[in-house]
Amino acid sequence: MKATNHYVWVERDKTESEKSGLYIPSTGRKKPHAGVIISIGGLVKDAEIKKAKGKKAIFHETVGQEIEYDSKVYLILEEFHIIGIE
Amino acid sequence: MKATNHYVWVERDKTESEKSGLYIPSTGRKKPHAGVIISIGGLVKDAEIKKAKGKKAIFHETVGQEIEYDSKVYLILEEFHIIGIE
Amino acid sequence: MKATNHYVWVERDKTESEKSGLYIPSTGRKKPHAGVIISIGGLVKDAEIKKAKGKKAIFHETVGQEIEYDSKVYLILEEFHIIGIE
Amino acid sequence: MKATNHYVWVERDKTESEKSGLYIPSTGRKKPHAGVIISIGGLVKDAEIKKAKGKKAIFHETVGQEIEYDSKVYLILEEFHIIGIE
Amino acid sequence: MKATNHYVWVERDKTESEKSGLYIPSTGRKKPHAGVIISIGGLVKDAEIKKAKGKKAIFHETVGQEIEYDSKVYLILEEFHIIGIE
Amino acid sequence: MKATNHYVWVERDKTESEKSGLYIPSTGRKKPHAGVIISIGGLVKDAEIKKAKGKKAIFHETVGQEIEYDSKVYLILEEFHIIGIE
Amino acid sequence: MKATNHYVWVERDKTESEKSGLYIPSTGRKKPHAGVIISIGGLVKDAEIKKAKGKKAIFHETVGQEIEYDSKVYLILEEFHIIGIE
Repeated sequence: MKATNHYVWVERDKTESEKSGLYIPSTGRKKPHAGVIISIGGLVKDAEIKKAKGKKAIFHETVGQEIEYDSKVYLILEEFHIIGIE
Repeated sequence: MKATNHYVWVERDKTESEKSGLYIPSTGRKKPHAGVIISIGGLVKDAEIKKAKGKKAIFHETVGQEIEYDSKVYLILEEFHIIGIE
Repeated sequence: MKATNHYVWVERDKTESEKSGLYIPSTGRKKPHAGVIISIGGLVKDAEIKKAKGKKAIFHETVGQEIEYDSKVYLILEEFHIIGIE
Repeated sequence: MKATNHYVWVERDKTESEKSGLYIPSTGRKKPHAGVIISIGGLVKDAEIKKAKGKKAIFHETVGQEIEYDSKVYLILEEFHIIGIE
Repeated sequence: MKATNHYVWVERDKTESEKSGLYIPSTGRKKPHAGVIISIGGLVKDAEIKKAKGKKAIFHETVGQEIEYDSKVYLILEEFHIIGIE
Repeated sequence: MKATNHYVWVERDKTESEKSGLYIPSTGRKKPHAGVIISIGGLVKDAEIKKAKGKKAIFHETVGQEIEYDSKVYLILEEFHIIGIE
Repeated sequence: MKATNHYVWVERDKTESEKSGLYIPSTGRKKPHAGVIISIGGLVKDAEIKKAKGKKAIFHETVGQEIEYDSKVYLILEEFHIIGIE
């Protein structure tokens, strides 16, 4: 499978909040999520994201569309959903 | 028949969920569909899609417009409907 | 008469569904229509359409604006209304 | 007087439907109008329109803004209102 | 004072309808107005307008914003408000 | 402090209507305001504004956002708010 | 962690109003906030911001999205939220 366009396929680590340094606050603050970048579409523009396969993307909790493909759960992000790379 | 503009003609495999690894969950998750790419319009920008004739496109369930043409059913996608190539 | 801008003038074949392979289903599916391309505006971008004078354009049923000009009925399409060339 | 921007000044021929081949149907079909192109703004992009001074522009009935200037009635069209040149 | 951006400063001739050939109809037709171009912003794109300082701009009645500056009344037009130069 | 993007920092002269030639009418006409340009963001496009540090910008009364910074009041304009330079 | 796209990560100084020259008025005026720029996305266009790592960004109070990441609070700004650099 290869991502297309400006999409980035991310495999969400279900225990990411424990493993990484993510702190899930009890307040109303937005909780960022992270996930391993699996595949990067060819129209993505940011150089940092283009070479981030296997790294962790940081993104807001509510963005992207979760799909089940080949028995795995992926989060399909558009490039601008990614606010940073770990 | 030749696709034009940024359209991609896809022949939906009706039994695709069985044949491919697609897993149709009973939850509210978006179920991606796949289909064989039949023809690719000349304004499509993604290099991966341009050379994907005969390969399977992955796309969300609700996108595109289904038509019947020459006794076959095609799904007419816009290029950005395609989130990946198998 | 010469089409301008991104417009494509099409002469709709009134018996097109019989002559071509178009199959008009009784279901809710979108029925594509076809028509002979008469004139192509100079701002049309798709290379396939630019050279398609005299060929049949495929387009969705509900697009474009029908006019009567010089005692003939034409359908004025914008370039992106055309999803394929026969 | 010289047109500017993407505007095209047209002098509507009041008896155009009689003189030209325009057929005004009694149905609900859009009736195109024609008029002699008087002046063409410098930002017009279509090459066919740029050189069409003195020719007849074809456009839909409801577009443009009619003004009275120097005791004449002109129709001020934006370039994309013109669907063809006679 | 120097106009900036895509703005054009116009000094409206209050008796313009008498002096120029403008005919103010009693009908519902749009009445164009004219005014002497005082200053032209550096981002104006139309070549005709760029060199029209001191000439009369033609524009629709309802466009632009009238201001009082230095005891004079100016009409501040955006470039696309100007439909022609006298 | 240095302005960024397409922003222009202006120090509003509180007695500007007296010092400059601005005439504040009692009618419904838009009253332009002026202010000394303090800093110009690097993405501003108009050449006249780029070199106008220390000069007076003319702008409509209701545009921009007033802030207090370092005990002074500034008006933060976007470049297109400026209709002229004195 | 590295910012991506047009995002700028800022570490808000909680006592910024005391340390810097920011004056928080009791009026309805917009109160700008400042914060140290931690990381700058690769698609940021303003040259001043690109080289402002470690400097203070000035921005309006209500912009951006606050997140907690790695036990710290960051404000994720889009580039155009930044109106100046201290």
